[in-house]
Amino acid sequence: MRTLLHLWLSPYCRKIRVALATKGLDFEMQVEKAWERRPEFLAMNPAGSVPVLIDEDGTILADHMAITEYLEEIHPAIPLLGADPRARAETRRLIGWFDEKFAREVTANLVDEKIMKRFLGLGQPNSAAIRAGQVNIHHHMAYIGWLCERRKWLAGEEFSLADIAAAAHLSTVDYVGDVPWEDHPGAREWYARVKSRPAFRPLLADRIPGCPPPKHYADLDF
Amino acid sequence: MRTLLHLWLSPYCRKIRVALATKGLDFEMQVEKAWERRPEFLAMNPAGSVPVLIDEDGTILADHMAITEYLEEIHPAIPLLGADPRARAETRRLIGWFDEKFAREVTANLVDEKIMKRFLGLGQPNSAAIRAGQVNIHHHMAYIGWLCERRKWLAGEEFSLADIAAAAHLSTVDYVGDVPWEDHPGAREWYARVKSRPAFRPLLADRIPGCPPPKHYADLDF
Repeated sequence: MRTLLHLWLSPYCRKIRVALATKGLDFEMQVEKAWERRPEFLAMNPAGSVPVLIDEDGTILADHMAITEYLEEIHPAIPLLGADPRARAETRRLIGWFDEKFAREVTANLVDEKIMKRFLGLGQPNSAAIRAGQVNIHHHMAYIGWLCERRKWLAGEEFSLADIAAAAHLSTVDYVGDVPWEDHPGAREWYARVKSRPAFRPLLADRIPGCPPPKHYADLDF
Repeated sequence: MRTLLHLWLSPYCRKIRVALATKGLDFEMQVEKAWERRPEFLAMNPAGSVPVLIDEDGTILADHMAITEYLEEIHPAIPLLGADPRARAETRRLIGWFDEKFAREVTANLVDEKIMKRFLGLGQPNSAAIRAGQVNIHHHMAYIGWLCERRKWLAGEEFSLADIAAAAHLSTVDYVGDVPWEDHPGAREWYARVKSRPAFRPLLADRIPGCPPPKHYADLDF
């Protein structure tokens, strides 16, 4: 059995969970408190970050992009990047958009401030950062809506890792109750479609002790 | 002819320049002052960031990872990721190390503070950030040295995008004179080998007006 070393609200770990499930690959999860810098964990990934995937044959894979590209190469039956080089370039452009730009402008300002800081004992959330995140997210929600007016899914006609990366980030922001769904019906309709996919459902059951999500978090008709 | 929209000291643009040159692909460069948010540029890459590559057939490619993966797919003759899925996973893990971890812990603290802030009129460099970058870089230099004791190049026996990504970041830090070469002979020997490659040489001729590099920057026997 594959083992995914992860943290509950890491969007990069969520991306791997959904990618594995979409490809029909079984795995078990093990929480890795990366900040404790366990020597056995650092031996697997000297960067000290999750996700780390231990594959069935013992291959240890670190770095979220390295993992998704590896899974796509080894298990191509259900492709998640696209059918040809141009389609894959578009999917990867959008993965970069969410994993870098959305992460920096939104996830870091909202999820890291509200949850990670508390867990790591790094003090009070920075209210200026939270305000910035709450402003920035509208730009991204509008972009999701714009894409979905032109395509069935974010990168094209097929569900892809672009949808998975975007929904992984958005789901963590939704967990802290900061997604302005009412202002962005296009993005909301897209997210409802993602939420209803069996591979995505397990994320909706995640619960951080002491930090319950808002009621609509797991609701398919939010 | 391909056109690369770039900024001189962007490590991500430098990565693409070296990747293109290593693969023997001709290109011309055009400086894109991304912060001016030129409408024609935003139409090509709504993320508003460089690098953007306009390929010979007019295909517009944005996002540094999307570009390198596309080049590897379309021009596989000189592979830069590795020969098999495991080798590619190791190369991509190290690309992630430098493009995310080194970028956050070193490049942002040194190059962004010393050069980008000045260009963008964002005020004085933050001296605490600079000190943090100067401490952090030792960890990365030691890791490069550790890898090179075990392998010919960072990801294995072949020169790869891991070397290119690492050297792209390091070259920008070297431009501001903050690489402690004397403390890390292993990393220094590796960088001397990278520097001597024809595909890397053009980077050593880069000059930012008003910000000359230290004398050793372009020296192959530094």
